[in-house]
Amino acid sequence: MPKTIIGVMGPGRDATPEDVETAQELGRLIASESWVLLTGGRATGVMEAASRGAAGAGGIVVGVLPSSDRSGMSGSVDIPIVTGMGSARNNINVLSSDIVIACGVGMGTFSEVLLAAKAGKQIIMLNQSEASRTFLDEFGSGLFHFPLSPGEAISMAKKLL
Amino acid sequence: MPKTIIGVMGPGRDATPEDVETAQELGRLIASESWVLLTGGRATGVMEAASRGAAGAGGIVVGVLPSSDRSGMSGSVDIPIVTGMGSARNNINVLSSDIVIACGVGMGTFSEVLLAAKAGKQIIMLNQSEASRTFLDEFGSGLFHFPLSPGEAISMAKKLL
Amino acid sequence: MPKTIIGVMGPGRDATPEDVETAQELGRLIASESWVLLTGGRATGVMEAASRGAAGAGGIVVGVLPSSDRSGMSGSVDIPIVTGMGSARNNINVLSSDIVIACGVGMGTFSEVLLAAKAGKQIIMLNQSEASRTFLDEFGSGLFHFPLSPGEAISMAKKLL
Amino acid sequence: MPKTIIGVMGPGRDATPEDVETAQELGRLIASESWVLLTGGRATGVMEAASRGAAGAGGIVVGVLPSSDRSGMSGSVDIPIVTGMGSARNNINVLSSDIVIACGVGMGTFSEVLLAAKAGKQIIMLNQSEASRTFLDEFGSGLFHFPLSPGEAISMAKKLL
Repeated sequence: MPKTIIGVMGPGRDATPEDVETAQELGRLIASESWVLLTGGRATGVMEAASRGAAGAGGIVVGVLPSSDRSGMSGSVDIPIVTGMGSARNNINVLSSDIVIACGVGMGTFSEVLLAAKAGKQIIMLNQSEASRTFLDEFGSGLFHFPLSPGEAISMAKKLL
Repeated sequence: MPKTIIGVMGPGRDATPEDVETAQELGRLIASESWVLLTGGRATGVMEAASRGAAGAGGIVVGVLPSSDRSGMSGSVDIPIVTGMGSARNNINVLSSDIVIACGVGMGTFSEVLLAAKAGKQIIMLNQSEASRTFLDEFGSGLFHFPLSPGEAISMAKKLL
Repeated sequence: MPKTIIGVMGPGRDATPEDVETAQELGRLIASESWVLLTGGRATGVMEAASRGAAGAGGIVVGVLPSSDRSGMSGSVDIPIVTGMGSARNNINVLSSDIVIACGVGMGTFSEVLLAAKAGKQIIMLNQSEASRTFLDEFGSGLFHFPLSPGEAISMAKKLL
Repeated sequence: MPKTIIGVMGPGRDATPEDVETAQELGRLIASESWVLLTGGRATGVMEAASRGAAGAGGIVVGVLPSSDRSGMSGSVDIPIVTGMGSARNNINVLSSDIVIACGVGMGTFSEVLLAAKAGKQIIMLNQSEASRTFLDEFGSGLFHFPLSPGEAISMAKKLL
């Protein structure tokens, strides 16, 4: 039986300290629900923090890597999916996630968020700017949700699953 | 010798009448410069209009299709690239384009625009909303340009090439 | 820490009864070693049998699906990776596997086996014909191994890891 | 209207002098028919030779590159499709070709040939070994054809289109 998979997307080296803290807490909470965490797998920013949080709480971490080997991978990844296809792997991240949680604002992150919405996925957005929220609201899709904390994000995810 | 390839991205069935008109004019102008037009290849919205415009002016049209065969393809495509990989093909569109021109606002379109910026491409944006422009400006990347007409977009492209 | 991932590849509906029996035993043995099983994820032939074998022995099963949703997925998959990219996902299967085991002869299977060899992976071949073995031997790569049973395949895998 | 696209696949640096000579003649003949040549785009072996042959005869050459930029590209490519997805781009090569011609024996080449057959494409095989021919014949697919010269390959292609 397939496990529930929660994708956490967010900036790499451009992640803010707040993004990193939020992502680590998200990872911890996802593992506490016995959900599988899926990230882009790299050892940086939101990916690294969420993976570390989930691994620390005993969860399973899937990392869908852009590279053609495991170089640059977070040490907290249990199951590396090596795609060798660069940013085209973003679409795999969103199709494979039951729910997508985005943490922070970045170009790669928003390419994933928009692919997720295009695929009809529910998307939970944390640490957004006024401009990013206004931009997403304009689509009128009803797919974007804006909780105020990681805890509220997990409560939302439970209802949306 | 590789030809100059200009990617035109934009909404499919959600394209506005203005997006369609702009895209057709872009296609015509791109062909007039002897550049190759590259689009997502489908027979709808901005893709269809740009392809028709370029084909009508004697240009070469490359269509990078999401589907695994030619179903749904614009009749103006000369060279269909059949990817069979859905929206993951968006990354191919931007990597293959010397310059990306986006026409209109859509979720797929913006996933491409952001992947293009991530890959360091120059991106010319037409028919944008205030919210989309504010959102893109926040990245401070210097890669997004906002001309007022297709003609101005082509002049910009010439300088950026 | 990444777990050891063993990819099992083989025909779908063209699998022979012997292929199915071998694949189920392979799945069981892989799970007994606490390795993760990775397959193409579909509910047919070698993929289905290996997944069922591993799940029955308490193992983790990753299914890298060609489709853009979970339709046609084996019920024994724990972690579906939804690629939406058809047979292009074959390259992900081999890049993600520490070792590839092929079971049976099929066109999709051999496209994977050859991509695996191109990527420098060790490949263990079961249930081969004389023609397939002669063909692979001609490459002189030293990457193809031909055990006589699933048990011997697992012993080989242990040495090659 | 889409042009006829003929894919020519074959080894890179492992191409034999005979493969190179055959590929260049194939490229020339394909261009003479006003067909578009599609290759893997790299500046080596069969890809380079076929591209040079077609370009020399005034044809259009599409190169579907594995890399994320144009490095290593044949100088005879007119239209580079930059995929950034490594060997996963092999599936795009075959899906985009009306007919596939393989020239020589190689692991990457045969991964393409088998993906092509899986997609139901007609495949014309040149410069094969006895082992490769015996192996392909075993599938009983009726999709593989074995002409004796580039000229005969083109005659076959005309009938199969």
